[in-house]
Amino acid sequence: MDNLSCTMIIFGSTGDLTKRKLIPAIHELEKGKYLPNKFKLIGIGRRNISQEEYSNMLYKGIKEYTNIETNQKLWNKISEKIYYLKMDFTKLSEYKKLYEYLLEDNKSKEISSNLMFYLAVSPEYFGAIVNNLKENNIIDGNNHWNRMVIEKPFGKDFESAKKLNNEITKVFKENQIFRIDHYLGKEMIQNITMLRFENSIFEPIWSNKYIENIQIIVSEKEGIGLRGEYYDNTGALKDMIQSHLLQILAITAMESPENFNMDSIRNAKAKLLEDLVLFTDDNNEENIVFGQYEGYKDEKGVSKHSNRETFVAMKVFIENERWQGVPIYLMTGKNLKEKLAQVNIEFKKPKNTINNKINIFDLEKNIQSNVLEIMIQPQEGIGLKINIKKPTKMNKTEVAEMEYCRTCLSGLNTPDAYVKLLLDVIEGDSTRFTRWDELSHSWRFIDSINGEFIKTHKYKAEGLGPDKAYKMINEDNRKWWFLDKWEKTNENI
Amino acid sequence: MDNLSCTMIIFGSTGDLTKRKLIPAIHELEKGKYLPNKFKLIGIGRRNISQEEYSNMLYKGIKEYTNIETNQKLWNKISEKIYYLKMDFTKLSEYKKLYEYLLEDNKSKEISSNLMFYLAVSPEYFGAIVNNLKENNIIDGNNHWNRMVIEKPFGKDFESAKKLNNEITKVFKENQIFRIDHYLGKEMIQNITMLRFENSIFEPIWSNKYIENIQIIVSEKEGIGLRGEYYDNTGALKDMIQSHLLQILAITAMESPENFNMDSIRNAKAKLLEDLVLFTDDNNEENIVFGQYEGYKDEKGVSKHSNRETFVAMKVFIENERWQGVPIYLMTGKNLKEKLAQVNIEFKKPKNTINNKINIFDLEKNIQSNVLEIMIQPQEGIGLKINIKKPTKMNKTEVAEMEYCRTCLSGLNTPDAYVKLLLDVIEGDSTRFTRWDELSHSWRFIDSINGEFIKTHKYKAEGLGPDKAYKMINEDNRKWWFLDKWEKTNENI
Repeated sequence: MDNLSCTMIIFGSTGDLTKRKLIPAIHELEKGKYLPNKFKLIGIGRRNISQEEYSNMLYKGIKEYTNIETNQKLWNKISEKIYYLKMDFTKLSEYKKLYEYLLEDNKSKEISSNLMFYLAVSPEYFGAIVNNLKENNIIDGNNHWNRMVIEKPFGKDFESAKKLNNEITKVFKENQIFRIDHYLGKEMIQNITMLRFENSIFEPIWSNKYIENIQIIVSEKEGIGLRGEYYDNTGALKDMIQSHLLQILAITAMESPENFNMDSIRNAKAKLLEDLVLFTDDNNEENIVFGQYEGYKDEKGVSKHSNRETFVAMKVFIENERWQGVPIYLMTGKNLKEKLAQVNIEFKKPKNTINNKINIFDLEKNIQSNVLEIMIQPQEGIGLKINIKKPTKMNKTEVAEMEYCRTCLSGLNTPDAYVKLLLDVIEGDSTRFTRWDELSHSWRFIDSINGEFIKTHKYKAEGLGPDKAYKMINEDNRKWWFLDKWEKTNENI
Repeated sequence: MDNLSCTMIIFGSTGDLTKRKLIPAIHELEKGKYLPNKFKLIGIGRRNISQEEYSNMLYKGIKEYTNIETNQKLWNKISEKIYYLKMDFTKLSEYKKLYEYLLEDNKSKEISSNLMFYLAVSPEYFGAIVNNLKENNIIDGNNHWNRMVIEKPFGKDFESAKKLNNEITKVFKENQIFRIDHYLGKEMIQNITMLRFENSIFEPIWSNKYIENIQIIVSEKEGIGLRGEYYDNTGALKDMIQSHLLQILAITAMESPENFNMDSIRNAKAKLLEDLVLFTDDNNEENIVFGQYEGYKDEKGVSKHSNRETFVAMKVFIENERWQGVPIYLMTGKNLKEKLAQVNIEFKKPKNTINNKINIFDLEKNIQSNVLEIMIQPQEGIGLKINIKKPTKMNKTEVAEMEYCRTCLSGLNTPDAYVKLLLDVIEGDSTRFTRWDELSHSWRFIDSINGEFIKTHKYKAEGLGPDKAYKMINEDNRKWWFLDKWEKTNENI
């Protein structure tokens, strides 16, 4: 058996994640011939359905939830690799079925297939599942690798995350654990590392000497959907900031890694997250804005008296030589005007230049900052605002937007993050997964925020979020640069 | 009389320059309401034509040689300001006519109108004209300014330029002399200063620490046309490199001026030109390529045995702290494949980065340099080549071209350089004109080249120029970046 061939075992294999993301990703890997020579997928579930019913359900899911191209012939090829195993994964004894199936599969007394366990279930089951795998000798073999993939949320705070981690690490080593943050699989997030380090022009100006502030926004158009109960216990701060936004920040602001193997990059990210300035009770309110969209309390699963935030805007700082004094503005929210994810790097205005001296151009005084815009979604690309002369008005300046927009040009969908991430697991590359120390630093940072001190402001559904989020940045004489994008997008529509 | 109102006196007023450039520029200034309150234009010529004939000839010229919008009503407004004065400007006595007309115009015993003399005639007449103006007391008035505008060529080498300058400066002071280099009036040339100093991201990386080489190309599609006699005595080195290309280089590479008044910028440019490394007899041949297009010797006015260069490619260096060790490649030529003017700033490849270490992206080894492209003509804009991930191929990089192309977007013609330059003269702003010290340094540099040592290579009409020009840069492991543009332009056509 080669080192890539493996069996993927999905816990929660009839759920939404499996249908919407995992199976479509496997489909694309098969289509692109990226799957290893030998690949098998075992879907574990409690439902009493046949192999055929299971296969049909998954095929239907691809057609219903995605716009990827498929056909029956291709699906048949994938379906051959899929086996539905009915079992109750909470019961120790049931794992015999899995063990025997894995044995049978190899016609030997010991499991020799590489195993990828995908835990697409609620975190409360993680401990039991890993324990049951261990007790049933499923992960004992010396001739195969075991890798475990888990979805967020990984804990609700530092303490619960630590407890969960302890449960898992009794059985799996850190390098066997793949904590998925699907944002890390997005093309443009991967591209940030490459932009910074594979182009010589950015790194020299990537510090507080030249950068005035950094803004990261991940806005969603949808509300909380059917996740009311989960969401009402979690909120935007823990659901989005702790994971996606802090990860984007870490990649954007980390020091240049010593080298580019997977641990060096994660070392650099962990260090950055460790350097985040913690909040204190008396600066929570001025630097953090919570919002809740109108109608949130009527959502299914939500408490009628909920004060839960569905929106967060905050200003954070990094205490290290590179970033001392540079504010980082984060914004995320549900039920906003548009779906958008981007990073804006705003550079300082030029000093001692034409504009500030006796000038030959008789310029307007409103020279703009250079802003580097890393577009993550829905458009993927990169933009740069620069000041140039207006051509027809003789002595005026204007802002030109240099742009490279991959999706604008090609109109093609880039592969879903899960395609890349599943391949990463198969290849044993955990660069794009969150290591425990990163997670612990980000939870410590989030734990420093005392929600009791923060007022939750109402905001209109499909609006811009609470006024306070704009007031906060405007009072610093800055603006949210994504607003330019929203206006633009509207023009285009 | 206000300080802008003036009378413009054109010597050579029935010539090509007047018809193709000067009158159309005045037309655009009138249209845009940029002309001063009181403005009069006196066209001096030897031809025996009426006011009406003169006016009609100019109007016809606008329609024939330009694509600017005009109409009879607008032209009548301009025509009212134009007076044709028949006189032989080589004869001292004839200047009485001009003097009297200028007096009559003001109904007084002394000229009180500001005077702009535009010498659209061969340099051999410059000395006589300024002398005759002086002798006839035309430039004596204390109540008005006198400015003199002259076209290139300003000399054939340092000695002849100095002689010419001495003749002129007997009558006009340096700050009254406006030596036109119409390239300095082009939008994107003006923009280079603004790009460098009104954007904070470029200046920190504008040195030999980050820049690997600089390339400036001004290629022409046309041959020498009807200028055979002039051209065969001059050649591409003196006609183009000495003026346009060195001026573009000076603006691109000058130190940050102390402030941005007109003398500071010209001080910085002059210093840069002074810092050019002179050639020696034994390095002429390896660093300079001359070319002559096939068929040149058959052009009208050209010697049958001419060895004159219609193409130059050369590698030059600047000896100062900022540019030590950075080669500057210049190329210009006639009868080439396309008309193109641009500056390419090639940055060093990234060091100690993903590509050079154990890497997570499994990158191809051919990471490209970042290249900042300043497009001057026919497109006006700015481009930047950056390395990004290929979206569909999982572990490959590609070069993305961020671009802001003004003319691509608007489709509009930016105003001709002469529009801005004539307004500059009216306003007394000589920033965009060549000062004597700049000129003297550039001539000294050109004089250091000994053409005798340089072979002139034949090249195909409408081709790329001689192979040797490509060999020269390729042997340095570099390439002419404009080639990308030529290929692209062809695709677009």
